[in-house]
Amino acid sequence: MGATLGEIVSALGGELVGAADLWVATMAPLETAGSQSIAFLAHPKYRSQLESTQAACVIVAPALKDAACERGAAIVTPDPYLYFARLTQWWAARTRPAPSCEIHPSAVVDPTAVIGERVTVGPLAVIEAGAVIGDDAVIGPHCVIGRHARIGASTRLSAHVVIGFDCTVGAACIFHSGVVIGADGFGFAPHEGQWVKIEQLGAVRIGDHVEIGANTCIDRGALDDTVVENGVKLDNLVQIGHNVHIGEHVAMAGCAGVAGSAKIGAHCTVGGAGMVLGHLTLAEGVHVSSGTLVTRSIHKPGLYTGVFPFDENAAWEKNAATARHLYSMRDRLRAIEKQLKNHDNDGHSQDS
Amino acid sequence: MGATLGEIVSALGGELVGAADLWVATMAPLETAGSQSIAFLAHPKYRSQLESTQAACVIVAPALKDAACERGAAIVTPDPYLYFARLTQWWAARTRPAPSCEIHPSAVVDPTAVIGERVTVGPLAVIEAGAVIGDDAVIGPHCVIGRHARIGASTRLSAHVVIGFDCTVGAACIFHSGVVIGADGFGFAPHEGQWVKIEQLGAVRIGDHVEIGANTCIDRGALDDTVVENGVKLDNLVQIGHNVHIGEHVAMAGCAGVAGSAKIGAHCTVGGAGMVLGHLTLAEGVHVSSGTLVTRSIHKPGLYTGVFPFDENAAWEKNAATARHLYSMRDRLRAIEKQLKNHDNDGHSQDS
Amino acid sequence: MGATLGEIVSALGGELVGAADLWVATMAPLETAGSQSIAFLAHPKYRSQLESTQAACVIVAPALKDAACERGAAIVTPDPYLYFARLTQWWAARTRPAPSCEIHPSAVVDPTAVIGERVTVGPLAVIEAGAVIGDDAVIGPHCVIGRHARIGASTRLSAHVVIGFDCTVGAACIFHSGVVIGADGFGFAPHEGQWVKIEQLGAVRIGDHVEIGANTCIDRGALDDTVVENGVKLDNLVQIGHNVHIGEHVAMAGCAGVAGSAKIGAHCTVGGAGMVLGHLTLAEGVHVSSGTLVTRSIHKPGLYTGVFPFDENAAWEKNAATARHLYSMRDRLRAIEKQLKNHDNDGHSQDS
Repeated sequence: MGATLGEIVSALGGELVGAADLWVATMAPLETAGSQSIAFLAHPKYRSQLESTQAACVIVAPALKDAACERGAAIVTPDPYLYFARLTQWWAARTRPAPSCEIHPSAVVDPTAVIGERVTVGPLAVIEAGAVIGDDAVIGPHCVIGRHARIGASTRLSAHVVIGFDCTVGAACIFHSGVVIGADGFGFAPHEGQWVKIEQLGAVRIGDHVEIGANTCIDRGALDDTVVENGVKLDNLVQIGHNVHIGEHVAMAGCAGVAGSAKIGAHCTVGGAGMVLGHLTLAEGVHVSSGTLVTRSIHKPGLYTGVFPFDENAAWEKNAATARHLYSMRDRLRAIEKQLKNHDNDGHSQDS
Repeated sequence: MGATLGEIVSALGGELVGAADLWVATMAPLETAGSQSIAFLAHPKYRSQLESTQAACVIVAPALKDAACERGAAIVTPDPYLYFARLTQWWAARTRPAPSCEIHPSAVVDPTAVIGERVTVGPLAVIEAGAVIGDDAVIGPHCVIGRHARIGASTRLSAHVVIGFDCTVGAACIFHSGVVIGADGFGFAPHEGQWVKIEQLGAVRIGDHVEIGANTCIDRGALDDTVVENGVKLDNLVQIGHNVHIGEHVAMAGCAGVAGSAKIGAHCTVGGAGMVLGHLTLAEGVHVSSGTLVTRSIHKPGLYTGVFPFDENAAWEKNAATARHLYSMRDRLRAIEKQLKNHDNDGHSQDS
Repeated sequence: MGATLGEIVSALGGELVGAADLWVATMAPLETAGSQSIAFLAHPKYRSQLESTQAACVIVAPALKDAACERGAAIVTPDPYLYFARLTQWWAARTRPAPSCEIHPSAVVDPTAVIGERVTVGPLAVIEAGAVIGDDAVIGPHCVIGRHARIGASTRLSAHVVIGFDCTVGAACIFHSGVVIGADGFGFAPHEGQWVKIEQLGAVRIGDHVEIGANTCIDRGALDDTVVENGVKLDNLVQIGHNVHIGEHVAMAGCAGVAGSAKIGAHCTVGGAGMVLGHLTLAEGVHVSSGTLVTRSIHKPGLYTGVFPFDENAAWEKNAATARHLYSMRDRLRAIEKQLKNHDNDGHSQDS
């Protein structure tokens, strides 16, 4: 495999400083790059690695061009991290086998399903009645596409993805293994100490260019649909409740969760294990830190955090025990302040 | 599809105010209901929506009958939310295709498995030796029913559910895709810096009317069984450790977890990402807030919470840094109180 | 099934006090053991249960030999918990059916896959091109072994496990249902308000004797591999990000997570729902408590915790509200201390 620097620059642009026929076998981080690797330097704080790296070629920003060229070949580009991202895509397209564009004979495809051009359906996949699969889509082994579900063009589902009935997935999406779209939302009416099921009559609508990580779940709406807009990226083991609305280009890290009917504005991010309670609204551009539970709506963009800081257990135990008396500490503080103020006043009156 | 108000009231009861032949096409929330929708008003705080809704008919409590009738048709019932729940069930039963009551030819069913009457087994499901499937059960595509597992009558498993060997599931349960029942509990004996596996010899016993969300896991017991009683509702991505006992009609929201051997009393609820540590006991009627870690047993019903409140990151950082000095702050507070008391005493002695 | 005490001691060692032909039908906890059960007493704090247990035989440490023998048969061994672990293994091997050592005819095995001796491939499993399955391995129903993936000898995969292309799994591993190895790591370059995918070109390398719980995910690396060393034990619903390195004999409980590029030293443990942020390093022997978010590297072995203590909701509300003013409380405390110090100084100067 591998590529010459000339091939790379011709495909992706950038200014090449060095020999166009220099060949690189792998992409690698600066630290572990060998003499046949191409690496990138995205952040000035890693500049010191530039001197020690063994990489044959480094992708750098213009400000680091001179430093990079002192040590070997370089590709100069305004945004090295973006260039790196595109290089990984170009690299993967060259090195990974193309989809077969065939329906595996072991797949169970309902005769009423509509399958587009050049679709790949993996072994033992199930495509139910009335489902529609767009051109160039790839349906992995053991996927289940429910009745009347729609998968957009060029969308790729890894093995073991379940798309529930009536749900729609846009174009150019990537869903990883174990994703479950369209399970019932969690809705019950309490009645005499028991829970009466509210059948979930909505579906899930997912836009284009959405990527969803392994074992992540997005529930169908109770009456209206759960909606995930274009360009959203969800990591693994994320839970999206019924009737949630996730705006464009939101990103959520692993183990995050959004409870029912919450509205997440465009360009929000949620860190790992961050949670948003139900029926809340997050404005565009809100960033929730890892491990933070959002308990009320946030109307102002910015970074929000709520985590008890970790410590050696013995220190934490003392501080945590005290945390249970915080309110009374504040009362005591007030009492002292009042006492001191009175005392001062007394003092002043004596002085006068 | 759709239904007339007369059909609805004849099936579900309630007092109809309006034309029995008025036809509604969809169920919808008050806010988004169109002129062919039926909606419900469950809580007086949404009363203002009654005036603005376009719904053809609104389900209301007697107290709101007059207000509802001013604007159009109404169904009056003591508990509109419960009525709504039942209406979704009736609606789903009318609009969704009935199970095929057939064993799909691609399913792999061991000849020693016992399959009840009118059972549906989806494509590519696997039913192992000695498994027993109750009447009217629905086994989704790609489900695996382990050897000697038992599935109760009318239980429905969505696609990709795994029921481990020897586990039992009651009647009228609903398990969503990706549920794993009966994986090994997490048990190891430490030995010379390594972990020696404790084979998990128990199973999982699940009662009737239990609903389990997508990708939720319930582990088998080490020696005795893990037990989930009747009517329990678990949301998606919930983790139930080995030998846990969950009492009747408990509900747990998404990403909640219960560690091994904990006992959760009947009618408890756990909010999203709430966690209960191992070997603890929760009394009946304990409610754990979202994001709360329960670190000791709770013997008194009530609502329990433990979350560091979130804030703008800069404010949080200052408060969190201080939280690591809470204990010393309390010491300092005490010292001041003592000093002031001594001072006062000095003052008093001078006064006297 | 069952076994005589003689058979047990002859297989696993230990000093038998009692009749070698005494037969036990089940293994059970002390509390629920019946008169045909064998139980164990691992910790002196449960000693009181020794008197009340109905067990036919109790496994005890030498210090409790006399107490155990007063009530019936006993097996005396230095580490009863370890003995119990080994007994469960011996018991399971006797009572569970052996793997069939056959490739089920419904499995889809690529002709270029290399299948070892005595391998079991369950119904409807998929083994892709170039995959290598070691001797005595068991591949469960519906598993997918990606192209060029390698599964070590005697490794057992339960139903519905996905091993991504190019990933390697060592020998004698146990992966439970729904495990996803080698989904793409969560990597995107921001560009004009959108996310540009970084194709994940690394894989996952897993050592020997690794056990992974149901629905747990380990992502493939961006450029280098994600690595899990020998003897690691992960519980259910655990998330391991790309390029994480997990040292030997680490154990992580359910719902734990490790973000990308973190390095977890050997013999660390992470409690349930414990989280480690990306790019951090945990030294060997670090123990993270349940529910704790690790936000900076830890270089010293020990137990670390960070959780807001839970309380009755009303008390928590007051304390949590105060927690948002912690920093200003510290300022006020300082001001008081200063004032008192000045006051004292004033007093002293008056005294002088």
